[in-house]
Amino acid sequence: MFQESNRPSIIKIISWCFLASLTTAALVFAFTREIKIALAIAGIDIVLKLLLYFVHEKTWSTIPFWRKDIQPGVIWLTGLSGAGKSTIGEGVCKKLKAKGFKAEHLDGDKVRDIFPKTGFSKEERNRHIKRVGFLASMLEKNNVFVVASFISPYKESREFVRRLCNNYKEVHIATPLEICEQRDAKGLYAKARAGKITQFTGIDDPYEEPEMAEITVDTTNQSIEESVGKVMKGLGF
Amino acid sequence: MFQESNRPSIIKIISWCFLASLTTAALVFAFTREIKIALAIAGIDIVLKLLLYFVHEKTWSTIPFWRKDIQPGVIWLTGLSGAGKSTIGEGVCKKLKAKGFKAEHLDGDKVRDIFPKTGFSKEERNRHIKRVGFLASMLEKNNVFVVASFISPYKESREFVRRLCNNYKEVHIATPLEICEQRDAKGLYAKARAGKITQFTGIDDPYEEPEMAEITVDTTNQSIEESVGKVMKGLGF
Repeated sequence: MFQESNRPSIIKIISWCFLASLTTAALVFAFTREIKIALAIAGIDIVLKLLLYFVHEKTWSTIPFWRKDIQPGVIWLTGLSGAGKSTIGEGVCKKLKAKGFKAEHLDGDKVRDIFPKTGFSKEERNRHIKRVGFLASMLEKNNVFVVASFISPYKESREFVRRLCNNYKEVHIATPLEICEQRDAKGLYAKARAGKITQFTGIDDPYEEPEMAEITVDTTNQSIEESVGKVMKGLGF
Repeated sequence: MFQESNRPSIIKIISWCFLASLTTAALVFAFTREIKIALAIAGIDIVLKLLLYFVHEKTWSTIPFWRKDIQPGVIWLTGLSGAGKSTIGEGVCKKLKAKGFKAEHLDGDKVRDIFPKTGFSKEERNRHIKRVGFLASMLEKNNVFVVASFISPYKESREFVRRLCNNYKEVHIATPLEICEQRDAKGLYAKARAGKITQFTGIDDPYEEPEMAEITVDTTNQSIEESVGKVMKGLGF
């Protein structure tokens, strides 16, 4: 049902060296018009090339900068509803993919769509974030960058996720409540103020501000592109 | 904070072709003792090799069998407590890793250790399995084989996971209740019979037998190794 192996194929390497030596033979023949010399050179050439190939691979693999097994990370965007987490997260994820990394964007709203009955009490929120953190850490462990956009209002669960991951970077999308409420893209603040939604972060539920966020972004006077750029820069890209 | 790129490096390819052409030049000189011919051949050789390298890569990448981006799968082990899911799952996961695949074993007990307050009602079990299925599908999407060992007694959630994954293989560890209860490695059946544990699958909670499992394994008269071998064979390895 599955294919046999994903190791670099030895047959492919031999096929490449064979092709390379054939080119050499043709070139030598074109210059010298001596078929014997061309074949003799090609014969030695292919053996040398195979040896050389492995020495070359080995040498490069010892240079850390060129190693393919890069340590990815979990980029955790926290902030109020409407602060810009999803949009910035999507942007950061795209940039990472454009750089050739594997990356996955976990978005609060989308994850809740899959599990519709997750509640908004402190306990349920914390458990939800911890589960998402576990998922993030698993992906990270398997060489995938994770960009996570979740309100994640409680320190406890954010610190739990930090401990779970190898390379956790907290990004506080620190757009102030007034601005988020002015924008109110989903009309949720209006509903919360009218009491039609309860347990709404920033209105009748607390948001515990990050104290040690690696990156802080305020989108009040900043375009999405600028915000994405600031995060990427903060991550060292 | 992170390293720049994990793309195959163009500089590495050039360095390899340069080295290869240098070998060629040395060989030609050794045979002809003509430095001009050796250098001329090497000069043309390096350009040809670079072109050839990309043609060669392109050609191989079109042969599906040799492509590196292999489609992994989710191998879902379902069965009663004590049937042998965790042990077999661990074995299958090890075999997959030995074949050079990325693989992750998600084990019911271990996952519950991380999220201790997940209940055992039908609704909570289903939600738990669906969340684990989501995690499995994310890993699968990112080229990681997932071996999942969960009682997962309800068809509904197993079918949910099947739909979520690209390549879902259900493995029914069909060790009969009597055998599981005889073994009772964790002493849970005794507790369940004594009424100290409730909602225990097979005792006072149903197990909905898989009807379309891709692989069925009964460990009654079979060693762990034989069972692992049967699963691997069933997966096409």
